[in-house]
Amino acid sequence: MFGFKLKEKDINTKARCGLITTAHGNVETPAFMPVGTQATVKTMTPGDLEEMGFQMMIVNAYHLYLRPGHQLVKEMGGLQKFMGWNKPVTTDSGGFQVLSLAKTRKIHEHGISFQSHLDGSSHLLTPQKAIEIQEYLNSDIMMCLDECPPVDAPKEYIDKAVELTTKWAKECRHSKTDETKALFGIVQGGVHEDLRQKSMDQLMELNFEGYSIGGLGIGEDSEETYQTTEFCLNTLPENKVRYLMGIGRPTDIVEAVSKGVDLFDCVIPTRNARNGNVFTNNGKIVIKNAQYSNDKSQLDEKCGCYTCTNFSRAYLRHLFLAGELLSHRLLTLHNLYFYASLMKRIRESIVQGKFEELRRDFSGKENEE
Amino acid sequence: MFGFKLKEKDINTKARCGLITTAHGNVETPAFMPVGTQATVKTMTPGDLEEMGFQMMIVNAYHLYLRPGHQLVKEMGGLQKFMGWNKPVTTDSGGFQVLSLAKTRKIHEHGISFQSHLDGSSHLLTPQKAIEIQEYLNSDIMMCLDECPPVDAPKEYIDKAVELTTKWAKECRHSKTDETKALFGIVQGGVHEDLRQKSMDQLMELNFEGYSIGGLGIGEDSEETYQTTEFCLNTLPENKVRYLMGIGRPTDIVEAVSKGVDLFDCVIPTRNARNGNVFTNNGKIVIKNAQYSNDKSQLDEKCGCYTCTNFSRAYLRHLFLAGELLSHRLLTLHNLYFYASLMKRIRESIVQGKFEELRRDFSGKENEE
Repeated sequence: MFGFKLKEKDINTKARCGLITTAHGNVETPAFMPVGTQATVKTMTPGDLEEMGFQMMIVNAYHLYLRPGHQLVKEMGGLQKFMGWNKPVTTDSGGFQVLSLAKTRKIHEHGISFQSHLDGSSHLLTPQKAIEIQEYLNSDIMMCLDECPPVDAPKEYIDKAVELTTKWAKECRHSKTDETKALFGIVQGGVHEDLRQKSMDQLMELNFEGYSIGGLGIGEDSEETYQTTEFCLNTLPENKVRYLMGIGRPTDIVEAVSKGVDLFDCVIPTRNARNGNVFTNNGKIVIKNAQYSNDKSQLDEKCGCYTCTNFSRAYLRHLFLAGELLSHRLLTLHNLYFYASLMKRIRESIVQGKFEELRRDFSGKENEE
Repeated sequence: MFGFKLKEKDINTKARCGLITTAHGNVETPAFMPVGTQATVKTMTPGDLEEMGFQMMIVNAYHLYLRPGHQLVKEMGGLQKFMGWNKPVTTDSGGFQVLSLAKTRKIHEHGISFQSHLDGSSHLLTPQKAIEIQEYLNSDIMMCLDECPPVDAPKEYIDKAVELTTKWAKECRHSKTDETKALFGIVQGGVHEDLRQKSMDQLMELNFEGYSIGGLGIGEDSEETYQTTEFCLNTLPENKVRYLMGIGRPTDIVEAVSKGVDLFDCVIPTRNARNGNVFTNNGKIVIKNAQYSNDKSQLDEKCGCYTCTNFSRAYLRHLFLAGELLSHRLLTLHNLYFYASLMKRIRESIVQGKFEELRRDFSGKENEE
């Protein structure tokens, strides 16, 4: 059921448009997936996300395994039915969250043992288990269990993590029972080109439906992120989906698209919203700032989202300072709308042969620190 | 600009339908006003409230006076423009909140001095100030400053509070500058009929556009609430709006409507939602209960709200236990929809001469503790 077709290639860069097909519908790429960690994109309904034009969501296998449990989600008809989101869903394997969130986690050859960050209960996440969880969740695009070492790990350690990631990837490949779903291999290797090459060579032998670039956006500088991404994209097969995991400032997305990335996910638009940091076409707005206290204008004059068409900066500042939940909702809506619009513009510009223009225009707009 | 017309009177009870007209639109009564304490009904957009059929909101003068300040709201074009709610707004005077929330508050003949619960700053709320605040907010229905004594206050104290409330009501009446707005007098007197009578006699001399029954729902038992309400309604003029302040369990509303109340406000539907307590046509649901963990049915089989048409009890339980903001949003939407539907059914039943039937049916449905 899963498929991917390249539709357009940019003439000036390596940017590309494609179409992912799944059992739950299609996804035009390059695409951004809003992050629904606990089976919900915080404050947003599925209806909100659909209206903005998002076609796929990413959900967290680790969190749902612990609560409410993947068996329960299966019993409820899978994530789509459970969440009321009748569209494609990507899941991560849980590996990254186990390593970053769980207590006393320990990496063995056969998997990762850890204690739940919720109640301290003991668990073992093996490659087989990671696939079972994701199949029970009814994910359309699953991830292999991988090991993502810290950015400052010694090269020998990163090399070992590549080996283990390949071993687990094989076991995941063999554990998969549902042919309608896609399974992506995750490339590791830090910022070392030889290790990245080794990781890719080993994974590509297993012929995954797509490839994720993991282990970036964890503390290395932007130049290293871009270089490593570019290096990987020069090797990864052109006819497969390329997913750059967890990276997603707007300028990162435009840069990565120019190198040939198809899929993105990132908590930045949603988390920034809850912290009062707003993306606009004229740069970042920190909504709590006093300069907006009596500002009648909308967040972004070029934006057509519900927040911008109905509320002033002054009102949004008031909601934020008053700690009102509506602030989180309205700013999340706006930031995600900004991302959805950006992806749409990117796709259109590639089709029209104008991506390089967009990229040039975009780099001047400072939405980042 | 403000007006009130009686449209229908029930044949069996004192229930009545009417139409309030204001500069910002009409309100069919009996009506329930969702509470937008800080210029927002928590988690809801104005669009949500309109879709549910609400025609008026109540907003808190005390909170907005302290933050963002009534001058700012005036500068922004009044509450309607500020909130993006182009419909009628009622405001309370702030008196009740000063007495319940503020620190070291002290009641004088000329007003209430208090310290802000936000930053400890010192303020004086006089009748003149209460009107200034509400006029700046651009309220359609304003309240006089009143003193609401605790339920266990000695009768002599409550008598004194009635006197002071009348004195302040006179001063509010004289301070009002905007003829397009309505000003309601607030009846006090605890559960003492002679004091209630005195309060009403004194207020009615001032010929307010409507009368609020205050000082109830603060700890007296339900029978006392109903008796005192009924006593007041037998005296208050039939051609004026009668507003029962702050009381609003569903059965309270049906009872009070049967005695002739036109307007309600209450935090119960919104606060209960955030605590996971859900109103349904078959009684209350406590969503965190284990019995709903794999319950595929909707909250209320008879409900057509967005929450009920899209999500299972199992999913809503998961969101609640995971502390997700979407839980607050979806349960608030459902509870308010329940209230909006109840008010619609009440109005229709009065027009059709079937209110007594609704009241009989309703008393069996236990949504309360």
